Amino acid sequence: MAKIMAVNAGSSSLKFQLIEMPAETVIAKGQVERIGLNDSIFTLKFNGEKVELTQDINDHAGAINLLLSQLQEHGIIEQFNEIVGVGHRVVAGGEWFNKSHIIDEDALNKIERLASYAPLHNPANAMGIRVFQELLPDAVAVAVFDTAFHQTLPREHYLYALPYEYYTKYGARKYGAHGTSHRYVAHRGAEVMGRDLKDLKMITLHLGAGASVTAIKDGVSFDTSMGFTPLAGVMMATRTGDVDPSLVYYIQEREGLTNEQMLNVLNKKSGLLGISTISSDMRDLEEVEETNEHAALAIEMFINRVVRYVGEYTAEMGGLDAIVFTAGIGENGAEIREKIMERLAYMGITINLEENKKRDDEMIISGADSKVTVMKIATDEELMIARDVQELMKK
Amino acid sequence: MAKIMAVNAGSSSLKFQLIEMPAETVIAKGQVERIGLNDSIFTLKFNGEKVELTQDINDHAGAINLLLSQLQEHGIIEQFNEIVGVGHRVVAGGEWFNKSHIIDEDALNKIERLASYAPLHNPANAMGIRVFQELLPDAVAVAVFDTAFHQTLPREHYLYALPYEYYTKYGARKYGAHGTSHRYVAHRGAEVMGRDLKDLKMITLHLGAGASVTAIKDGVSFDTSMGFTPLAGVMMATRTGDVDPSLVYYIQEREGLTNEQMLNVLNKKSGLLGISTISSDMRDLEEVEETNEHAALAIEMFINRVVRYVGEYTAEMGGLDAIVFTAGIGENGAEIREKIMERLAYMGITINLEENKKRDDEMIISGADSKVTVMKIATDEELMIARDVQELMKK
Repeated sequence: MAKIMAVNAGSSSLKFQLIEMPAETVIAKGQVERIGLNDSIFTLKFNGEKVELTQDINDHAGAINLLLSQLQEHGIIEQFNEIVGVGHRVVAGGEWFNKSHIIDEDALNKIERLASYAPLHNPANAMGIRVFQELLPDAVAVAVFDTAFHQTLPREHYLYALPYEYYTKYGARKYGAHGTSHRYVAHRGAEVMGRDLKDLKMITLHLGAGASVTAIKDGVSFDTSMGFTPLAGVMMATRTGDVDPSLVYYIQEREGLTNEQMLNVLNKKSGLLGISTISSDMRDLEEVEETNEHAALAIEMFINRVVRYVGEYTAEMGGLDAIVFTAGIGENGAEIREKIMERLAYMGITINLEENKKRDDEMIISGADSKVTVMKIATDEELMIARDVQELMKK
Repeated sequence: MAKIMAVNAGSSSLKFQLIEMPAETVIAKGQVERIGLNDSIFTLKFNGEKVELTQDINDHAGAINLLLSQLQEHGIIEQFNEIVGVGHRVVAGGEWFNKSHIIDEDALNKIERLASYAPLHNPANAMGIRVFQELLPDAVAVAVFDTAFHQTLPREHYLYALPYEYYTKYGARKYGAHGTSHRYVAHRGAEVMGRDLKDLKMITLHLGAGASVTAIKDGVSFDTSMGFTPLAGVMMATRTGDVDPSLVYYIQEREGLTNEQMLNVLNKKSGLLGISTISSDMRDLEEVEETNEHAALAIEMFINRVVRYVGEYTAEMGGLDAIVFTAGIGENGAEIREKIMERLAYMGITINLEENKKRDDEMIISGADSKVTVMKIATDEELMIARDVQELMKK
């Protein structure tokens, strides 16, 4: 048995899961928040217990040191070197990484050089990698990229109709995101159906605070709704999704905003929050939609944007066999799922209303007569990361 | 019989058609180019003849004076007041105009106030209106708006997921364009099918140098691909269509461009031209696609973007009965039509290859067994304008 750590390092936070492989058992999980600020919070859950510590943690080294010593203190590990592999979520992999990769100096340099594509994330990811390498020098370190799964997109899907030189000079293209999640639920979905993913035309709907839609054909990502950045695609909690760039400039000039300020509006003040004016959380909106016109409108727009992409990708793939809902709204929003499926009745989708209300992690929610199998699959990016680490350790 | 003039006034050009109504016969047509520059060119076609004059024309008043006197000189009209109605194409109608409108002082003020939505077009449209009013004071003047047909879009389709206040403060929403063309071909398409447009779910593909896709349901526009401006939607001759706004800023900063310069790139240097690097004209690209990889890629991307929208709107409408191709590429690009239809085979579309090659103005090009009727209809915005003028003159 091998203990593998899945890590998601942000600029002021670090999430982790320690997973026993190949049993795929989560032994411990938790997070460190407010790194570099006062009163940082460390949370650890294991074996039904929960530990929470509040103390100043100055940097990622401090956070990871605390994490490892807490694992030891609570008897979850005896020696650091029991952790034989660490898988790091990395946001931007550009065109250099089309799958998970063992981290050597070259890979780490590339991750740092890709910071211009993900200025808030890649530097933090790289910092997490360096600290773990220092503290666990014998563990195999693996980078698992959010973008890697989408490197199979055909050129006519990933290119924008911009001057071609921007692609060669700046890598201006669609990279997508949520790749690890789309990959995980696609494979689980095929397993639930008892089919080979390669034989299916599938659309995976990762609908959380960030939301993206992926078309999967011949077992690989064929198109995805996020773009050069995670701003594009469907409407999200606080992000616009697709919007006419001319309108962005029009508003920017009238509001007197800098580019950075305008991007902040598009990323942080738009989406469900922007339209509803009350909350970015779908649950809040559903609670008041009967009486709050703006909340109802935001929900209606969200459903519309998802339906648009399902249609778009059905046309691109030339048909559709399966849909998978996942992530916060996708897993828990039974009514949202129902409304989306209702709009897709024209393609022969029927709903098993009873099943759709249940809270199981993995289930088929379309009717027995449905021409497209619709599923709800709880995503598990950490498990996918641990699997990738184990796979690469064998080589 | 009544002579009605359809006018399309640009900042340095003016196109016109003189149409005998209700016979719908074009008596004369032509244009004035390079208004305000040296060596302006006046062209008039009538009765199989063609007149071309090159002389300095200082302004729109000069252009319209020349046009009317030439009509007289060539015996097309005897008196100015034979022209009983003038219909003006106006680009932006905002939310004030949901159909064609007789031009009074209030309407003209509104057209001028809408200039911020179409700074290159509405002021020129308004200038054309004022000059014709002076020279033909007794003619009924009618404004026919590019956006009016799309005022029936439901709110969840026309709103962007931006902060809602931008809609109330700045009218930030989707207005669409090519409305007169979409309206014309939709109605003609239904007639060709012998059906009532109200009973059809139809997608009209206006594919010219500018290109837009419209979903028509219950006889009215239900969604359309152009946005706040005509930049959004499908890829065009020199316009990007949809693009991640974050990428626009990323490129702008790296290239050191102003907002205006970047918008110029998106509108003038992108699309077919940007990808092919050789031409914005689809015919040029088709000529070399066998040997020029960039030309082939541009064509492939164009087809993909149209297919995406057909899928998107099929899902929004919950089905599809008919597709109409129109405008330059839509009417003349038999191979492009064929390739688009091939991708749509999954929805039961078949192609009548023989018919598709013919050059008739109006024809059904899908097979007899096709589940969706696909047509090619030559658009005629001037006729639609003349009809609107005549209709409003009756009231």
